[in-house]
Amino acid sequence: MSSRRKFLEKLTGSAVALAVLPKVVSAGGRGNDSRTLRVAIMGLGSYGTRVADAMQSCTRAKLVGAISGTPSKLVDWQRKYGIAAKNCYNYSNFDAVRDNPDIDAVYVITPNALHHDQVIRVARAGKHVICEKPMATDAKLAQEMVDACDKADVKLLVGYRMHFEPKTLEIIRMRKAGDFGKIKFFQGLAGFQIGDPSQWRLNRQLAGGGAMMDIGIYAVNGARYMVGEEPVWVTAQETKTDPVKFKEGVDETIQFQFGFPGGAVASCLSTYSMNNLDRFFLDAENGWAELFPATGYGPIRGRTFKGELSQPHITHQTVQMDEMAAILFDGKQPIVPVDGREAVKDMKIIDAIFEAVRTGKKISLHL
Amino acid sequence: MSSRRKFLEKLTGSAVALAVLPKVVSAGGRGNDSRTLRVAIMGLGSYGTRVADAMQSCTRAKLVGAISGTPSKLVDWQRKYGIAAKNCYNYSNFDAVRDNPDIDAVYVITPNALHHDQVIRVARAGKHVICEKPMATDAKLAQEMVDACDKADVKLLVGYRMHFEPKTLEIIRMRKAGDFGKIKFFQGLAGFQIGDPSQWRLNRQLAGGGAMMDIGIYAVNGARYMVGEEPVWVTAQETKTDPVKFKEGVDETIQFQFGFPGGAVASCLSTYSMNNLDRFFLDAENGWAELFPATGYGPIRGRTFKGELSQPHITHQTVQMDEMAAILFDGKQPIVPVDGREAVKDMKIIDAIFEAVRTGKKISLHL
Repeated sequence: MSSRRKFLEKLTGSAVALAVLPKVVSAGGRGNDSRTLRVAIMGLGSYGTRVADAMQSCTRAKLVGAISGTPSKLVDWQRKYGIAAKNCYNYSNFDAVRDNPDIDAVYVITPNALHHDQVIRVARAGKHVICEKPMATDAKLAQEMVDACDKADVKLLVGYRMHFEPKTLEIIRMRKAGDFGKIKFFQGLAGFQIGDPSQWRLNRQLAGGGAMMDIGIYAVNGARYMVGEEPVWVTAQETKTDPVKFKEGVDETIQFQFGFPGGAVASCLSTYSMNNLDRFFLDAENGWAELFPATGYGPIRGRTFKGELSQPHITHQTVQMDEMAAILFDGKQPIVPVDGREAVKDMKIIDAIFEAVRTGKKISLHL
Repeated sequence: MSSRRKFLEKLTGSAVALAVLPKVVSAGGRGNDSRTLRVAIMGLGSYGTRVADAMQSCTRAKLVGAISGTPSKLVDWQRKYGIAAKNCYNYSNFDAVRDNPDIDAVYVITPNALHHDQVIRVARAGKHVICEKPMATDAKLAQEMVDACDKADVKLLVGYRMHFEPKTLEIIRMRKAGDFGKIKFFQGLAGFQIGDPSQWRLNRQLAGGGAMMDIGIYAVNGARYMVGEEPVWVTAQETKTDPVKFKEGVDETIQFQFGFPGGAVASCLSTYSMNNLDRFFLDAENGWAELFPATGYGPIRGRTFKGELSQPHITHQTVQMDEMAAILFDGKQPIVPVDGREAVKDMKIIDAIFEAVRTGKKISLHL
């Protein structure tokens, strides 16, 4: 942690100070003059609304537009968030965002299977894209999205909100500083009891899978940033207790294991049938770290062999969007990458997990 | 917890009261008149010494004899523990324990591969046998030991000290009372960084394996008593980072997974190359439980969704031996079985784990 950051924390002891922080510490040193990231959200569902609410506290990002197939939602958002009617689009006409100088980026928060085409359309419209995780339903599609953004010369970021979470970052800082010594083991448990069986998350066509795509990805991604290496093999086992709710191709519970080049291993769990199972544990030569809850929206709790972590809670989506402004406009390098290439790796791992489930074999990874 | 037990805890608030407890609450109601279990320890190594020390605080079990291949150790033990010379034997002559009316049982605490023959010899000498875990190096040998004890009409117990640990038992009580609802997930991490490479635990001929036999068995056994069901399948993956220290057939790190009939799953880890990795976690419909450390010799720490567990620490081996007196003499039924049949199940699972590692396949279990 920088001494300035430490100073600010001491000064105020409040989460607000940290939410304000990104613009203060962002690369380029533009301070308060830094350009504001003007965002349109595509997909006005529950998570889209959560992001919109969180953005009201942003200092460098601003919600200025909305894209939805439901006209009444667009009217609601105009009123609720003060969005101009001219910045609202539907799924037929949003390519016209190209001609809208008031929108810098579109945050795609639609069902997983729609991301691919929508992200590519936004890229072709010349706007930066923020895509909610999972970026796509497989690695091939994800790579096409990266390529399309490269070709269109726009940036592609993925909504990995934990990459900006202070307790998570503190553990990563400790790992990089060598506090833990050699990393030996990571355990990532990620799941919740899913409700309404008719939701798109349980529809293979829209979700591209089940719990793994939605929540298991936190353990996949977490394994990588907690261990600090890319896994070289994966094994996986699926368990289905409710084949009515979890149809063919919609995974309910998958246990998966990784091996890493340095000899560390990981044991992970992805599930839609356990209550708020949200725990990370890192074991190493000289100590350990735990996050529990590890990835929920509320305050993360963390402890290490040195004691309880005390970094204050920040609404994850608020800091994510402010930091993304610094990444897009100032070229700031986040501590853990959030670009499309980073997300392709997660998709490659998820592809391999599904293959391991199908074949019962250990699958080699080359990331 | 019985109201009597609660009362006693309140009265004294001390671990001593609990150590005294077994004789008070043991089946048969013999109270202070209950017969004392007079034990000879076979194998005077570090764990044998730990048991001998712990037995000095026993109220129903008494260390009266010793069996060793090292005459000087026998002399030391006679002095240190007040053992009569006539109750000391070596590995050639210990069958003569048959004619010693002052010894009720022999506790076999020798290298794993020796248990089979030694337990059978003790049984044939007409004495009850307590065998340290793992009971044998495979399930077939373990079953032969059970059969031999049946045939000799002596009882065979296995040194599962956690089956008497108060915080562990409180979680099991809560599970049985339905506090957790349906059990969904168990995680058992068991390991430590093993030292001296020349010790018998790293010698396949004497240990029958590596970390799995010695420490992984805690997670195997824990999965069964925490979930409260027998697993129906297992998968496993081995990782070896030091093939010099961990030779062919001596496992360094194995991840293994179980499926249970009720749909619960387990993710476990056995290792000789991580520092004090000793965590149990149980997740269920209505809550969770954690033990961390879960199986170490020192005080176990436990918490559940209801809060910290406050049961006082008792030296595990002290209460184990007192309880075993009640099991052997009063027919007391322990909350979690500690007999040979129970241990055969663990050996069948370990056999299957090794098979899963060898074949890369999911192995069905029929326990």
